[in-house]
Amino acid sequence: MPKPLLILHGGAGRWRAPKDRIDKALRDIYNALEHGLRFLKSGSALEAVVEAVAYMEDSGSFNAGLGSILSINGIREMDAGVMDGYSMRIGAVAATRYPKNPVRLAKVILEKTDHVILAGSGADFLAERMGLEKMPPPSNDIIRRYNELIEKYKKGEITYFKGNIELAKELGLLDTVGAVALDQDGRLASAVSTGGVWLKLPGRVGDSPIPGAGFWADDLVAVAATGLGEVIIRSMPSIRLSILVHQGYSISKSGELILDYVTRMCGLNTIGFIAVDRNGEEYIGFNTEHMMIAYGSFDKKYAKLLSRQ
Amino acid sequence: MPKPLLILHGGAGRWRAPKDRIDKALRDIYNALEHGLRFLKSGSALEAVVEAVAYMEDSGSFNAGLGSILSINGIREMDAGVMDGYSMRIGAVAATRYPKNPVRLAKVILEKTDHVILAGSGADFLAERMGLEKMPPPSNDIIRRYNELIEKYKKGEITYFKGNIELAKELGLLDTVGAVALDQDGRLASAVSTGGVWLKLPGRVGDSPIPGAGFWADDLVAVAATGLGEVIIRSMPSIRLSILVHQGYSISKSGELILDYVTRMCGLNTIGFIAVDRNGEEYIGFNTEHMMIAYGSFDKKYAKLLSRQ
Repeated sequence: MPKPLLILHGGAGRWRAPKDRIDKALRDIYNALEHGLRFLKSGSALEAVVEAVAYMEDSGSFNAGLGSILSINGIREMDAGVMDGYSMRIGAVAATRYPKNPVRLAKVILEKTDHVILAGSGADFLAERMGLEKMPPPSNDIIRRYNELIEKYKKGEITYFKGNIELAKELGLLDTVGAVALDQDGRLASAVSTGGVWLKLPGRVGDSPIPGAGFWADDLVAVAATGLGEVIIRSMPSIRLSILVHQGYSISKSGELILDYVTRMCGLNTIGFIAVDRNGEEYIGFNTEHMMIAYGSFDKKYAKLLSRQ
Repeated sequence: MPKPLLILHGGAGRWRAPKDRIDKALRDIYNALEHGLRFLKSGSALEAVVEAVAYMEDSGSFNAGLGSILSINGIREMDAGVMDGYSMRIGAVAATRYPKNPVRLAKVILEKTDHVILAGSGADFLAERMGLEKMPPPSNDIIRRYNELIEKYKKGEITYFKGNIELAKELGLLDTVGAVALDQDGRLASAVSTGGVWLKLPGRVGDSPIPGAGFWADDLVAVAATGLGEVIIRSMPSIRLSILVHQGYSISKSGELILDYVTRMCGLNTIGFIAVDRNGEEYIGFNTEHMMIAYGSFDKKYAKLLSRQ
């Protein structure tokens, strides 16, 4: 009988935030872990990852949900995805503006529709129709950081039509959130959520709603990736990791091979990911300076800001 | 030196259309082939696939571009994707309403932005800003077919919130378009475009803008898939085929394995795909009743409606 396990991440990148901010994020990810573990005890891996991610969305500490950053024209458009490994069902949402919890909208798409991914105004319409809670306006802190960046943009330090991936690398603010879980029935699930990259073009879709890129879950493994969305889409780490595990590699060997592959293809400071297999073995890897994670089984729980060796 | 090659498809599914309609589609796909081959001669694989797909979008014979079907609320939202195997760059667009040629918008995203996928109103905004041609209103034929389906819907024969995948299977109208090419410099590329499924929920995203699902191209192989978008996203045939080819399997063996895999996982009448490798070997496979294709090298050209054995 497998040992239930829940792992969360709060983004891979470069954490340059003041200590009190990092401490708050660590508390929030730890509380999200405890919250998710309660659902893992009473329910399924799917519920646990969705609830843990929704908790992080609500915390405002991460670039997801309430903490979502703004695009070049000052709006919030969020992405999220969830996959249930047992049924291989997927729900994902791209460039949505309406819901406070994009991950809950992703779960609605998984459960209530025949579709897999919804985007834009159609996704917003469904969120409203299904009675999901509406997103309040952005916080003063988000607006202040947006205004600082827009000043840079006006000085010509940021190029509009390129979509500002260089800026994202420079800022190192890649604090998407994600979760993977194994429940006591041996079912695996993953969920991810993000506000994207600062000053992205409106409509930009990152890896979070792209199955095989930002997340994957099946009978053997659940994966959640984070980092530069564009790199993750081009390198498809989540499905590649699943394929290696299905070919008989251990989860840690698979994880190492995929991390090497992405680093070789796309460079350092591009990706981090967490994964769990059906035996309760995990892999946590990143090629960025830092990655924030929380690990929780019923006998061991911790949250940490990991640094690259 | 590789022998340049261009393969197109006009969708896999069940062709129940009158003979004159099928004949027109065959003429259109053949003309698209000749059009694409001119670009393959003078330019790159990337240009050839984009131009061939744009030609099919303009023909109105397929469920893409001018021939795009309507969602449950009577709007057109289109998906497209393009990948250049040489640079591994991707451009894709999801749920876009503005451009007459979604595949051209996908190419703009590939060439002019740092992003990979744009969706919804942000994608429309970029299309307009970049001066792409605007989509005219739907044809009378499309509106007539929509009204017929809406009558069924009003009688309760079609369920709203489920997104009508059963309907798509029943209608068999899966005539997405796609193209793969190898140019004389050995570069591979793929492009796909679709109007989605009849009476889909607004915002629904199919496989066409999802790298690894609806399309893929790299140094060894280019793939374009078609069929039930939701199935293709769950089964990720394009990246799976690439991985097998990279592991040393021939393209035809890889194609057979992937077709078997998808059929075993998701059933018959779900998928078709075309692929070409860097040696100019091709794979064309489908588990649907029919698939329309066009094949063109400089010494051999044909268009055919293939039937399952």
